[in-house]
Amino acid sequence: MKALRYEHQQLRVTDVPTPEVDGEALVRVTLSGICNTDLEIARGYAGFAGTLGHEFVGVVEQVAETGPDVPARGTRVVGEINAGCAHCDLCRRGDSRHCANRTVLGIVGRDGAHAEFLKLPLRNLLPVPAEISDEQAVFTEPLAAACGILERVSIADHARVAVIGDGKLGLLCALVLATTGANVCIFGKHQGKLQIAGRRGITTSVLQETQKQARAFDVVVEASGSPSGFAVALDLLRPRGVLVLKSTFQGGTEINAARVVVDEISVVGSRCGRFAPALELLKAGKVDVQGLISEEFALSEGVRAMARAADPGVMKVLLRP
Amino acid sequence: MKALRYEHQQLRVTDVPTPEVDGEALVRVTLSGICNTDLEIARGYAGFAGTLGHEFVGVVEQVAETGPDVPARGTRVVGEINAGCAHCDLCRRGDSRHCANRTVLGIVGRDGAHAEFLKLPLRNLLPVPAEISDEQAVFTEPLAAACGILERVSIADHARVAVIGDGKLGLLCALVLATTGANVCIFGKHQGKLQIAGRRGITTSVLQETQKQARAFDVVVEASGSPSGFAVALDLLRPRGVLVLKSTFQGGTEINAARVVVDEISVVGSRCGRFAPALELLKAGKVDVQGLISEEFALSEGVRAMARAADPGVMKVLLRP
Repeated sequence: MKALRYEHQQLRVTDVPTPEVDGEALVRVTLSGICNTDLEIARGYAGFAGTLGHEFVGVVEQVAETGPDVPARGTRVVGEINAGCAHCDLCRRGDSRHCANRTVLGIVGRDGAHAEFLKLPLRNLLPVPAEISDEQAVFTEPLAAACGILERVSIADHARVAVIGDGKLGLLCALVLATTGANVCIFGKHQGKLQIAGRRGITTSVLQETQKQARAFDVVVEASGSPSGFAVALDLLRPRGVLVLKSTFQGGTEINAARVVVDEISVVGSRCGRFAPALELLKAGKVDVQGLISEEFALSEGVRAMARAADPGVMKVLLRP
Repeated sequence: MKALRYEHQQLRVTDVPTPEVDGEALVRVTLSGICNTDLEIARGYAGFAGTLGHEFVGVVEQVAETGPDVPARGTRVVGEINAGCAHCDLCRRGDSRHCANRTVLGIVGRDGAHAEFLKLPLRNLLPVPAEISDEQAVFTEPLAAACGILERVSIADHARVAVIGDGKLGLLCALVLATTGANVCIFGKHQGKLQIAGRRGITTSVLQETQKQARAFDVVVEASGSPSGFAVALDLLRPRGVLVLKSTFQGGTEINAARVVVDEISVVGSRCGRFAPALELLKAGKVDVQGLISEEFALSEGVRAMARAADPGVMKVLLRP
């Protein structure tokens, strides 16, 4: 089968054997989405070698076992990307997302979704309701990551919430937070991207305007991926406010710890989220992700698609095997 | 009256007028305690000029008004150190500790407690129950700061909690946390100080041992004041653990933001705490602070006392007007 792989410091579409099921499920990929993490891996930042990709929608091709809770062959599915060891304390408590020995689809020790087929444990798969198109379902993983904020922070009704960054992640965070009844403002650099949020009734503002709103927000989500985003976010928070760190910065980040202590700020890391709430939002039509797609490429054009995804101003780029 | 003052880059005991009541309460100070913040101010770090000191027990000498809720002349009192503007949103919600226009006893815009008399708003004063000696009551403010952790983090029964730092603040944090039913371990450098916690049934460990306990704790309190304490604390935390920042570091602090995001850590700033829970602990004999006193000086010896308080290994130094 064809797969978009990064190995030996080289990105290319190549032929590899179709995965052996080995007790898991084999999924034929219908669509996959390119994430900034894929771009970082292809820059050699993450130490991963193998097939890239962790955002996908597909169809179950083969399963190691059958039963009432097992998606049958032909079921349209998305899949949680962390595969825990199933034995440690965390896994036994149902939290494979933080298992120290986990593999992660296309990120850690497990071939990913930019391929004709992938495999995942059966328990990772969720059927996609008929109301959700493939082009929507492929957003389940990043949307779940945005929903993950709500696992970590309780957002009061009418809370003043700011999102820093108008990239794909920032926009998804703003769209999800707006469903809670919070007053959401997104700060970014690109009028075109900000308008995507603006059209859904979210307040938009250019980054230069943050100084005028110092200490005005209850919750600030840093989703810009820029090291300066942390300081900007801190300035926007009221005393006892919550800063949600959503971007994985590379390397160390300088923080004003005195501000965190004196104003009793909480800094809350947030990474992945559960898929079920994301599917609910898509099914109910509460978050419209279609405007986030920039372009679709054939999987065979994967290298060109990755270059396109890295262009400034480009939103989601999809691959179709 | 005599007062220990820092002004014109100079620390000295000098004669100043007794404060005018001006709508507040005049308190005759019985004992005051020297805090590390006093030492930092006297090094010129904090931009404060005036009478130092914010830990005290005293007796009400004069009040601007009388009434059922106003401590009568002669009442033994301690006092919350943040005096809010009483008009802003925060103050009206009862949170003068975070009022942007607050003064802080001996720290921001208000003469402090290392003096024969001080003044504070009536609402800041709390009567000291008869069960609590002056030598215990003078610890109310730092003990309240330790109790403040429990306002910010809920500690589950049998939670594994680490405290980094065996100074006065670290020890008080460990003693308070041990009252919750948590399994507390304090990490420090000084066997003598660690023993104070050890005698109260708290596990003690030297800082070099932290590597052996990577990811072993649910909550870690950084109370060492050392910039390296942050990284040490982060290493000790399990995924989704909580790092409580209790020390105000000077300047920027480098953090591993990727660890905070990937392991979904919460970093929670904690500064002051309410006095009532601290008085409850002292009254019930649940926290024994007497072993933390190193020495007592007359207020007239204030400069020498400050030098003593800065000596390595010295715990609480008290001043008696």
